[in-house]
Amino acid sequence: MAASVWSVDPRTGKRREQVAVEATAREVDEAVRAAHAARGALADRTVRAALLRTAADLLDEAGEHVIEAADAETALGPGRLTGELARTTFQLRSFAEVVDEGAFLDIAVDHADPAAKPAPRPDLRRYKVPLGVVAVYAASNFPLAFSVPGGDTASALAAGCPVVVKAHPDHPGTSELCVALLRRAAARAGLPEGVIGLVHGFEAGVELVKHPLVAAAGFTGSVRGGRALFDAAAARPRPIPFHGELGSLNPVVVTEAAAAERGEQIGVGLAGAITLGVGQFCVKPGLVLAPASAAGDRLVKALTEAVSDTDQGVLLDSRMRDAFVAGVAERAALPGVETPVTAGSGGQHTVSAGFLTVPAAALAAGGDHELLLDECFGPVTVVARYEDETQIGAVLAALPGNLTATVQLSAEECAGQDGRGARLLAELTPLAGRLLVNGWPTGVAVAPAQHHGGPYPASTSTSTSVGATAIERWLRPVAYQDTPPALLPPELRDDNPQRLPRRVNGRRAG
Amino acid sequence: MAASVWSVDPRTGKRREQVAVEATAREVDEAVRAAHAARGALADRTVRAALLRTAADLLDEAGEHVIEAADAETALGPGRLTGELARTTFQLRSFAEVVDEGAFLDIAVDHADPAAKPAPRPDLRRYKVPLGVVAVYAASNFPLAFSVPGGDTASALAAGCPVVVKAHPDHPGTSELCVALLRRAAARAGLPEGVIGLVHGFEAGVELVKHPLVAAAGFTGSVRGGRALFDAAAARPRPIPFHGELGSLNPVVVTEAAAAERGEQIGVGLAGAITLGVGQFCVKPGLVLAPASAAGDRLVKALTEAVSDTDQGVLLDSRMRDAFVAGVAERAALPGVETPVTAGSGGQHTVSAGFLTVPAAALAAGGDHELLLDECFGPVTVVARYEDETQIGAVLAALPGNLTATVQLSAEECAGQDGRGARLLAELTPLAGRLLVNGWPTGVAVAPAQHHGGPYPASTSTSTSVGATAIERWLRPVAYQDTPPALLPPELRDDNPQRLPRRVNGRRAG
Repeated sequence: MAASVWSVDPRTGKRREQVAVEATAREVDEAVRAAHAARGALADRTVRAALLRTAADLLDEAGEHVIEAADAETALGPGRLTGELARTTFQLRSFAEVVDEGAFLDIAVDHADPAAKPAPRPDLRRYKVPLGVVAVYAASNFPLAFSVPGGDTASALAAGCPVVVKAHPDHPGTSELCVALLRRAAARAGLPEGVIGLVHGFEAGVELVKHPLVAAAGFTGSVRGGRALFDAAAARPRPIPFHGELGSLNPVVVTEAAAAERGEQIGVGLAGAITLGVGQFCVKPGLVLAPASAAGDRLVKALTEAVSDTDQGVLLDSRMRDAFVAGVAERAALPGVETPVTAGSGGQHTVSAGFLTVPAAALAAGGDHELLLDECFGPVTVVARYEDETQIGAVLAALPGNLTATVQLSAEECAGQDGRGARLLAELTPLAGRLLVNGWPTGVAVAPAQHHGGPYPASTSTSTSVGATAIERWLRPVAYQDTPPALLPPELRDDNPQRLPRRVNGRRAG
Repeated sequence: MAASVWSVDPRTGKRREQVAVEATAREVDEAVRAAHAARGALADRTVRAALLRTAADLLDEAGEHVIEAADAETALGPGRLTGELARTTFQLRSFAEVVDEGAFLDIAVDHADPAAKPAPRPDLRRYKVPLGVVAVYAASNFPLAFSVPGGDTASALAAGCPVVVKAHPDHPGTSELCVALLRRAAARAGLPEGVIGLVHGFEAGVELVKHPLVAAAGFTGSVRGGRALFDAAAARPRPIPFHGELGSLNPVVVTEAAAAERGEQIGVGLAGAITLGVGQFCVKPGLVLAPASAAGDRLVKALTEAVSDTDQGVLLDSRMRDAFVAGVAERAALPGVETPVTAGSGGQHTVSAGFLTVPAAALAAGGDHELLLDECFGPVTVVARYEDETQIGAVLAALPGNLTATVQLSAEECAGQDGRGARLLAELTPLAGRLLVNGWPTGVAVAPAQHHGGPYPASTSTSTSVGATAIERWLRPVAYQDTPPALLPPELRDDNPQRLPRRVNGRRAG
């Protein structure tokens, strides 16, 4: 008998209701085949744009219900979830605009040139076509924006790829509700419902990435789970692209001058960044390099006060809570580590925020202290106190890849004085996909210039999972050589009936 | 003692001279570290463009010597190699133009918008940065265009990535000669010589893909070798992108109407395509679907005559020759397979061209006949005779991914009659990266709209190894958030001092 999937209230740890059953291998196969069969219906870009906009409208209309369901399963609160829903529908509508504009097709037309050097050139016309069925692995911490109706789904549908989502076990009810809305949108756009599938269960997720008709995968989650799926994708007889966002420490470097200028303000800002959403953001700053000076002491004091004043919070599930409590305790027990505010178990189902400090020299020395360079999900961070700039460099050299890296600079450093700001940015750029000056990485704007990804383990690929270019993950180029006009896809015809932007003979046109 | 690397004359099987030794693990490490140390010097795009153009000039100047060296090791002949050298220097200069234009940087600037929905938007500016040291695995069959000075090297240097090439054992002397020219070009451009390294030896190639400082790899070669390196790249603690071109059958479908209209011409054209370069092209048509009709018989008769008239040729090495002879014999022994012209061993060091026929129904039935769907390097192809269009579909459904797929259509089918041409193209598009109508896939134009890649095993990624977009393989995006103008890379400043094309607030500009 198939295992039941329960909706659980993280505020009480109690099961609320059974909302689904885990998918068997046969059910995974059916979902993938239904999605595969729907791919032809997605070929029309106007249909895709309509699907995305209708999905956004239906989610907005059902907003109250969706937020209630998500809050019941995640305890993230109506305020945060209202914002997340707005972000989710904005993403869907943004991808509809991307589809309308058509630049993502990357169209290039080279006319035949018998006189070309070094050899006569045939007529060549290239654009991008959808890869096929995309498997989407939903995240725990964003039940909407990085789950069933989230960026991976939106970008895959925009690219013309049907989707099968593996629901995250933390919010199966929300997932069912959202997939029903997406399927209603599909029906309204004249698409078969199979264009978006949903499966529950760990084994189903493994089956999904191995399915011969799955052409690519998107993932947001832990290093352990993501790496296992990445490995399975690479080990297939026919490997597929696996775009995974696995883990990130999001280092912050505070210069002495910045600490001297606004140490208190930085401490308060940092407290907000590590406790926002109960520290359950992939871009939470997990390591802060602060000077071991009086100015640095003021920063730590302000951080201490602000973190102490933070309310306890509920983590997404009990497994995460256990990992947080154990992870903090294990780190706090390392030699040289101090705990100005002890993070850990709060009430029966809550945790309290805190932070650790460690001498940067101890951190850079490696050994057991390498644990401090592992992401710890939840409201905690590590402040490494450095004596001089060489210690900053030594710690940065030990870091794995990150989604973000931040520098806190003084006004004069921002103006270019000493070259320190540019030097630090250059030192941090190889480590991350997004660099920030005097800000906090929490908050990932959905914008054309956004990049949400970074060197491994931040990402398993060079792509982004947020912003317009996320669509590029689900496409591959195809070139047509000497193809008669009557047989060309309309996107590649000389008369350009869809008025798409393109390159003609190497020059941008339209 | 390090193993000697010999230059061998394929026309005699005799060793010519010792040209190098296999690199030890320590030497691979030194080459990678030297390349890594040179990456900063490549940051300036004008230096990169100068390097590429100077390399092209030096190769042209040394042309006679280079062609002589390559011919002595490959027996490809001065005619073909003169063309390949021209292609190689054209590629280098084309990538210099790509570097000058700067569109590959994919620059996007979004100005801050406090009133943006669904949330206030920070200032975000994105461009692409080089990944780091690129490992290039040279191909056997293109000692220049897909080897030391080839497209992978050119595109990686254009992207700002230093390169370490693993030489192909078929042309170590040519590799040494070319790397010396590239290093001379580097010196003239003011770059350290370590910016381009060369290693010999199988083990050195394995060490290279595992080296922690290698950030990406390009490969052109066999399924077996490429898959082993792909697996090693994916299994690293920190996996890296592996852009491999492994194998391709390059199916051709000849319609009944096309065979009726110009069966003889198609037969002669096909003979040329399978024997060009002694069949040693990755885009050689390895499977032809031809009608089992009188028109199809005329095609086969013309093919028989043209192939019979083809001179014997020398393959690149004795291993390849043995594999060809054995591979043809194994295929010819399958039930239902006929050999109108028997390919195989010619003289002592030559092979003769040929082809096999098989009923399409037998091929589609699978079993032992699946061997006919494996690429067989050398001057041979398989002609599958179909009774009706359903047999075409059945064979195509059994095919792995390909670099190219070709249809031969009648004039009326080209004009759109019956929809057959469009239907066949639509059926072939999921199978290949380049589609041709009434042409032959041999010959891969270096052009902006080119795509040389395809579903696995044609490629291990969705990228191309030929054409301007090949540069995209060696870059990753980085976004800068709220970064003061004084600290921004010049490419991202509002005044756009380098006059680069970019998107500003989502709209294309410049």
